[in-house]
Amino acid sequence: MQTNPLKPHGIYSPVLTPFNADRSPDFDRYVKHCRWLIDQDVGLAIFGTNSEATSLSLGERHKLLDALIEAKIPPHKMMPGTGACALPDVIDLTRHAVQSGCGGVLMLPPFYYKGVSEEGLYRYYSAVIDAVADERLRIYLYHIPPVSGVPIPHTLIARLLSAYPVTIAGIKDSSGDWSNTQAMLEKFQPQGFDVFAGSENFLLRNLRLGGAGCITATGNVNPGAIVQLYKTWREGTADESQAKLDATRAVFAKFPMIPAMKAAIAWKTGRSDWGTVRPPLVELTTEQSKELHEALAGVNFELPNASSLV
Amino acid sequence: MQTNPLKPHGIYSPVLTPFNADRSPDFDRYVKHCRWLIDQDVGLAIFGTNSEATSLSLGERHKLLDALIEAKIPPHKMMPGTGACALPDVIDLTRHAVQSGCGGVLMLPPFYYKGVSEEGLYRYYSAVIDAVADERLRIYLYHIPPVSGVPIPHTLIARLLSAYPVTIAGIKDSSGDWSNTQAMLEKFQPQGFDVFAGSENFLLRNLRLGGAGCITATGNVNPGAIVQLYKTWREGTADESQAKLDATRAVFAKFPMIPAMKAAIAWKTGRSDWGTVRPPLVELTTEQSKELHEALAGVNFELPNASSLV
Repeated sequence: MQTNPLKPHGIYSPVLTPFNADRSPDFDRYVKHCRWLIDQDVGLAIFGTNSEATSLSLGERHKLLDALIEAKIPPHKMMPGTGACALPDVIDLTRHAVQSGCGGVLMLPPFYYKGVSEEGLYRYYSAVIDAVADERLRIYLYHIPPVSGVPIPHTLIARLLSAYPVTIAGIKDSSGDWSNTQAMLEKFQPQGFDVFAGSENFLLRNLRLGGAGCITATGNVNPGAIVQLYKTWREGTADESQAKLDATRAVFAKFPMIPAMKAAIAWKTGRSDWGTVRPPLVELTTEQSKELHEALAGVNFELPNASSLV
Repeated sequence: MQTNPLKPHGIYSPVLTPFNADRSPDFDRYVKHCRWLIDQDVGLAIFGTNSEATSLSLGERHKLLDALIEAKIPPHKMMPGTGACALPDVIDLTRHAVQSGCGGVLMLPPFYYKGVSEEGLYRYYSAVIDAVADERLRIYLYHIPPVSGVPIPHTLIARLLSAYPVTIAGIKDSSGDWSNTQAMLEKFQPQGFDVFAGSENFLLRNLRLGGAGCITATGNVNPGAIVQLYKTWREGTADESQAKLDATRAVFAKFPMIPAMKAAIAWKTGRSDWGTVRPPLVELTTEQSKELHEALAGVNFELPNASSLV
């Protein structure tokens, strides 16, 4: 499907960041979780929204990436989030990712000011590219207006692609608006700009229109089935497989997603500290956990090889 | 009006951050601008929204505050913004402010995730207070939902005030919704929780209901007249003075506010680099600058003692 096997494609997951009870990152469980994902053919979109990346300091992000590199996790399968409000931070994080050999970076727009101009967003991305000044850099734009409050319009993509046709490599569309994904698949995918769906709900539709795959939170808890659909989407079972993915995701989506995924891993591994989140997020209540377990049992939820996670 | 003269009250301004042509902070002009504000009885809400604080790295913020301290600008007149998405950053910035002797800190809620729970916001603020663990800490909450996307509900204020009655010192209300300011003046100001209006448009109304003053962007460009109303609000001229303040502010509000204020200072000081902003903000165009000059002339705009700014 892809001519270059090293080019990011397929299923990526914004890697959950495990914390100790004191809310410091647990490097050991982090490495194990990443290895577990890689073993199931899931790429590592570390430092995404579902990684609580904006709740981590720059220093913590550096150390977490370094820990993966030291553990020999293959960097070309990593796509760290490096977008931030302050350009010096974005440049620092992006440079670190490129110098570590990461296959790409997933870049939020600056998300504090709202209603900023397209010219301002263009200057932000071009300032990063010019400052990092490394031909290995591959940027995947991150369109997630329900959270960031700052959309990435198609006119901005066209302008960036025209100025930096190699560096601007693709997008994750987490708008939840399929018509937006579809329009980008039609307009930009033929130019080699890889469109990733923002969840597996849109995986089959995305692949049928030539998309690159999806980058999805629930890759953290349901990797096997999602990857399976990616590998078999041309077969007759595809629609049925998609329906099963949707049913599992719907369970997690009934709860605050990040605490629910962490609670599911805590449950299946027996490690309660897997449930820990950083404020402003809040762990599931006992009552919510119970509801989650019952609902997950209803979709025959399993975490394969869970013992390797702790 | 206030029993403790060192307690923040009156007029504060989110201090504009001057950049060099390469967008690095200009420490010299920064110190001069702060001294100019202090000389006009305007307190220094450094690192606010209009300071482009979220566009600065932590290291830059440290150096800028240190430059003011070294220049003998009185720290009790400073109220640095220290809110951020990542708790380690908030704790670092807040500790630095307290240890520098700042009169208070203005604290944004974590602003990446939207729709977070009140419990999560409570945990954020209490985690900072517990980690900084300094009885000198005075927190002013920062309610600016049009930008942050994360409101501070009254039930949260009540809970924080109950747990930390001395540390939780007040709020800046930048909602633009007078009914919200009024409700807080009635509910919380009698408990010694100081309510600052988010712009001088609400200054007179705020003072008449017992408020502490205002923290306003246009304090950067119209300090004299705003302070004058604060000092004379009980006199018969107050309504007329308020109308004049509103007219001047309306000129700036017709343009992107931060670039417009910087352009006005660039114009009056003859230093074009005062106009520089960081992406995602964009400088005014030549056409916009011309319109701004004409509109400012219409309200007899002057920058007193502008030569001391460069």
